[in-house]
Amino acid sequence: MDRGKKGDRMSERDAGTVGFIGLGRMGSAIAGNLRAAGHPLVVWNRTAGKAAALVAAGAEEARTPADACRPGGVVFTMLADDAALDEVVSSDGFLERLAPRGIHVSMSTVAPATNRRLAERHTKAGSVLVAAPVFGRPEAAAAKKLWICVSGAAPSKDRILPLLGEIGQGTYEFGEEPGAASVAKLCGNFLIAAAMEAMAEAFTLGAKSGLAPADLAKLFGETLFSSPVYQNYGKAIAEGKFQPAGFALKLGLKDLRLVLGAAGEVNTPMPLADLVHGRLLSGVARGRAEYDWGALALGAAEDAGILEKRGGLEGNG
Amino acid sequence: MDRGKKGDRMSERDAGTVGFIGLGRMGSAIAGNLRAAGHPLVVWNRTAGKAAALVAAGAEEARTPADACRPGGVVFTMLADDAALDEVVSSDGFLERLAPRGIHVSMSTVAPATNRRLAERHTKAGSVLVAAPVFGRPEAAAAKKLWICVSGAAPSKDRILPLLGEIGQGTYEFGEEPGAASVAKLCGNFLIAAAMEAMAEAFTLGAKSGLAPADLAKLFGETLFSSPVYQNYGKAIAEGKFQPAGFALKLGLKDLRLVLGAAGEVNTPMPLADLVHGRLLSGVARGRAEYDWGALALGAAEDAGILEKRGGLEGNG
Amino acid sequence: MDRGKKGDRMSERDAGTVGFIGLGRMGSAIAGNLRAAGHPLVVWNRTAGKAAALVAAGAEEARTPADACRPGGVVFTMLADDAALDEVVSSDGFLERLAPRGIHVSMSTVAPATNRRLAERHTKAGSVLVAAPVFGRPEAAAAKKLWICVSGAAPSKDRILPLLGEIGQGTYEFGEEPGAASVAKLCGNFLIAAAMEAMAEAFTLGAKSGLAPADLAKLFGETLFSSPVYQNYGKAIAEGKFQPAGFALKLGLKDLRLVLGAAGEVNTPMPLADLVHGRLLSGVARGRAEYDWGALALGAAEDAGILEKRGGLEGNG
Amino acid sequence: MDRGKKGDRMSERDAGTVGFIGLGRMGSAIAGNLRAAGHPLVVWNRTAGKAAALVAAGAEEARTPADACRPGGVVFTMLADDAALDEVVSSDGFLERLAPRGIHVSMSTVAPATNRRLAERHTKAGSVLVAAPVFGRPEAAAAKKLWICVSGAAPSKDRILPLLGEIGQGTYEFGEEPGAASVAKLCGNFLIAAAMEAMAEAFTLGAKSGLAPADLAKLFGETLFSSPVYQNYGKAIAEGKFQPAGFALKLGLKDLRLVLGAAGEVNTPMPLADLVHGRLLSGVARGRAEYDWGALALGAAEDAGILEKRGGLEGNG
Repeated sequence: MDRGKKGDRMSERDAGTVGFIGLGRMGSAIAGNLRAAGHPLVVWNRTAGKAAALVAAGAEEARTPADACRPGGVVFTMLADDAALDEVVSSDGFLERLAPRGIHVSMSTVAPATNRRLAERHTKAGSVLVAAPVFGRPEAAAAKKLWICVSGAAPSKDRILPLLGEIGQGTYEFGEEPGAASVAKLCGNFLIAAAMEAMAEAFTLGAKSGLAPADLAKLFGETLFSSPVYQNYGKAIAEGKFQPAGFALKLGLKDLRLVLGAAGEVNTPMPLADLVHGRLLSGVARGRAEYDWGALALGAAEDAGILEKRGGLEGNG
Repeated sequence: MDRGKKGDRMSERDAGTVGFIGLGRMGSAIAGNLRAAGHPLVVWNRTAGKAAALVAAGAEEARTPADACRPGGVVFTMLADDAALDEVVSSDGFLERLAPRGIHVSMSTVAPATNRRLAERHTKAGSVLVAAPVFGRPEAAAAKKLWICVSGAAPSKDRILPLLGEIGQGTYEFGEEPGAASVAKLCGNFLIAAAMEAMAEAFTLGAKSGLAPADLAKLFGETLFSSPVYQNYGKAIAEGKFQPAGFALKLGLKDLRLVLGAAGEVNTPMPLADLVHGRLLSGVARGRAEYDWGALALGAAEDAGILEKRGGLEGNG
Repeated sequence: MDRGKKGDRMSERDAGTVGFIGLGRMGSAIAGNLRAAGHPLVVWNRTAGKAAALVAAGAEEARTPADACRPGGVVFTMLADDAALDEVVSSDGFLERLAPRGIHVSMSTVAPATNRRLAERHTKAGSVLVAAPVFGRPEAAAAKKLWICVSGAAPSKDRILPLLGEIGQGTYEFGEEPGAASVAKLCGNFLIAAAMEAMAEAFTLGAKSGLAPADLAKLFGETLFSSPVYQNYGKAIAEGKFQPAGFALKLGLKDLRLVLGAAGEVNTPMPLADLVHGRLLSGVARGRAEYDWGALALGAAEDAGILEKRGGLEGNG
Repeated sequence: MDRGKKGDRMSERDAGTVGFIGLGRMGSAIAGNLRAAGHPLVVWNRTAGKAAALVAAGAEEARTPADACRPGGVVFTMLADDAALDEVVSSDGFLERLAPRGIHVSMSTVAPATNRRLAERHTKAGSVLVAAPVFGRPEAAAAKKLWICVSGAAPSKDRILPLLGEIGQGTYEFGEEPGAASVAKLCGNFLIAAAMEAMAEAFTLGAKSGLAPADLAKLFGETLFSSPVYQNYGKAIAEGKFQPAGFALKLGLKDLRLVLGAAGEVNTPMPLADLVHGRLLSGVARGRAEYDWGALALGAAEDAGILEKRGGLEGNG
């Protein structure tokens, strides 16, 4: 698992300027850790004003995505969606500047097919795309507690593992096919959504039977499912508290769309993924796009006619 | 949570003969711990030959369920289903012998309505039913590692908590309504089934996309879902290994029927419970009633046309 | 199909007093047609005051269900549910009075298992139960436009076909197993509910895309699905008009429960039946038990956040 | 509804050369009827050899899509999918040649968004796209029995209604928004798939309960659902006969994808559409892409463990 941890020596040897594109909350935290680890850093963000803290920490700000690339170097991207990633890779000079043998570490949550397709374009241009999507919220990113899924050509993967070791607590490898790590990432987000739907139905059954959802959340979080996903989302669902959003419902919907798209490509029916996708779609239809995606749990309560008793969601029913 | 652990003094004061009815694998393990804790024990099982080990440890064997009851005493039941529980409670002299103020600790996984209905019969007869279903397999029962959900009249519940402290690692209370603990228990089994379906779909998507299900099971069991349910069932599902059964699929089906029955009584739609119920029903239809209930995961693989590649389930596709 | 139409000669030969139990809207209409066809008629209803019109038409009112039976005669039942049917068959003297070789024509929509179980009790008592559930609303019953499904022992079935010919427009036979006709009846109600859910989703997609649901209802009712179920329910769903109820939602829920119960007995997953069952359960939870069961269509609209724009259902969302 | 039927006079007045692009079974039949009605016809197909019969009937064969267009004229397209339609519209000179005020009658089953997007391109180029997807198989097309859904700018729609009257038996208008007719078409295909799934589940329940699926198909086709969809697909499903394909399962899957895509755009959950989409996906995964799409019914039988008894589908389970 943690080949990333052993590689300090290698990371120094290879240390050159590292590029980082996409300075949202996740990207900024990760880039900050790369800088703190001593790497010369050049950063770029589509909208201005996100680079200030990193520049203050010694990073250089690039004028274009290509400017963040070095011949044979490593550039990370952490972007909002497939379109944003596509745009960066297609921007003037990006692929040309990275070659020969430069590595694009693609961390965004995107369709496996997107990473596959872009990887081919890299290959043609003489560089390499390694997919490295992550699990963890911005706080986890800041604390170097990310879990990272990696797939791509072996030598390039080996070269970046030391870097990944500086930003996460563990790296999981999924072979050389560049889409594979994206599949793993999407599976994880699906599993979280599925766990939330399961708790939503169980807690609703409990509430209508006279049990306090919080008591059920405590029971399961301490016993059968003593892991953060059940504990944290269980508490939020029991309390009906979905604001402010840790991860917005509309982004969860985007990810479930990616799950179903990937499943469609390999002819895999996923009825539970359909169910949670429907819950998220309904959440957007009911005005909850900006809620935390745990609000998918409201669907079960609404179906049972008890929304009003559970949350303070005036005006959203 | 663990009021059961503080009560040793009380358990000695109240120590009298304890009855135990139902000596399957779970019941035998629990009864053994009660005996080992020093309680005089009288046991009964519908089919003969199950009491030998307990008798060798000093327990008395009753000739009828009523024989296992003492006036004002405590009798446990751990039976296969609602019908078996009904039969014991309705057997000659059972309710009469327990009164006055005797306590029936009802540990079986049954419908909330069954415990509610039987509790009323106890009340009329001058005794009390406390529902106390448990989470944990026979090995956990033997190791006093059960998690116990309790609901029933407060004074009676307090009186038995010390006993529960001798057989489990924690007790969760769900108020005075005797069906409530059964709701909590059923919710737990539903959550397990839901987690299995989620992993089944995710691993199937992975398998069809070129990822090894075992790699996904490892990833999620070590990171997002580092709890036994995901770890153990995840491994079994990834390996397609469902024999011998830890918990038979047909019993899982029985429990999901109870979940949906309880949901129907309080007008609560549970689409995910419907889904896993359907998977289990299909499992029985395909000849897997005696497999471990993790075999519900085969449904996702079959839908995707890859059963043959995943398991050694000759003759069942 | 219509063996019932050829049998006039036989019906005269066998003509004796006919019993009719259960004088709700359906039962009264059917009994009225039997009386109009010239049969001496003796009727019974659990609650008083339902027999007046039939008595005015020459029927006799029985004091008990058994009073409505004649040795070797024919007695119809058309009751609200399984419990009511059970109660009648178990009432004092019912089975004894019907023997020998009397026929109980069981028309209620009940579980196949109920008709099977009761048929065995008849056999033991020397009489015969023939299941004969019907399709059609009270107006259709009054107009002798019912469609009748029949199953039971061949000679008894042959004997009653002339009677069925007097109350319906067609009879469909499903063999000798007394539960079979109930399966056919339940399948029909399931198919209607499924068609309503399909239209509900399609019309909701239409509404959210700017199309008028009424235009879609017209399109499909005139072209692909030019049959009354699609035409009538399509119109009601497009208009959001579910009161007064032709068939109450709570009764639809009862029937879907019977469908799923019958499916469970033969290990048949029915995901679409689960879906419509959930819609009906949700309808009851939201206060629509007395609406027409077409109101299951509101679920799709609510999920899409457009209930307010579709109907005048104040206070039910 | 049938404004198309009154317009013969107008169609003569406007008669000019009509273009027809896409000479599959549907397109050839429709084009043949336009020629038979006396219109000068110019046709084009991507792969050669499809135009022979039409040329023999007096049509001219174009060398490019643009060649099939006349300034201010009318050109029909009937193509396999969105990509093929896109390609034709984007081909050299197509849009330029049609202007000014020429009309593209877009009959293919495509995403509403595709017709919307292409309509905008037409508007910019000075021409008009009218969406006119149809219901009916090739035999219905040959017999002028198509049902046609139309949406687009009013004057252009009026101008083509006489032409539509020559190829169908009825036209349904859905306003000026060019995507609307596609929504109606997709709703229809969804309703057919939903009816097939409903029958599949009902017949499977019947089969497992001892009833002959053919008897159920007959019952429902003659009574509650006496329309061709239920009669024809009901018979095929009861017999398990899905070859040769009238409409290939893989095309049905494509259409359900379009349904769910359209639903996603307007935030409309469609759980029944998800279900049938999953059945079709599973059908492709099991090697039935070229079967008739009625083979989605096999899913219910497989879930219930009875496929072997129902069809002759060796090697596909």
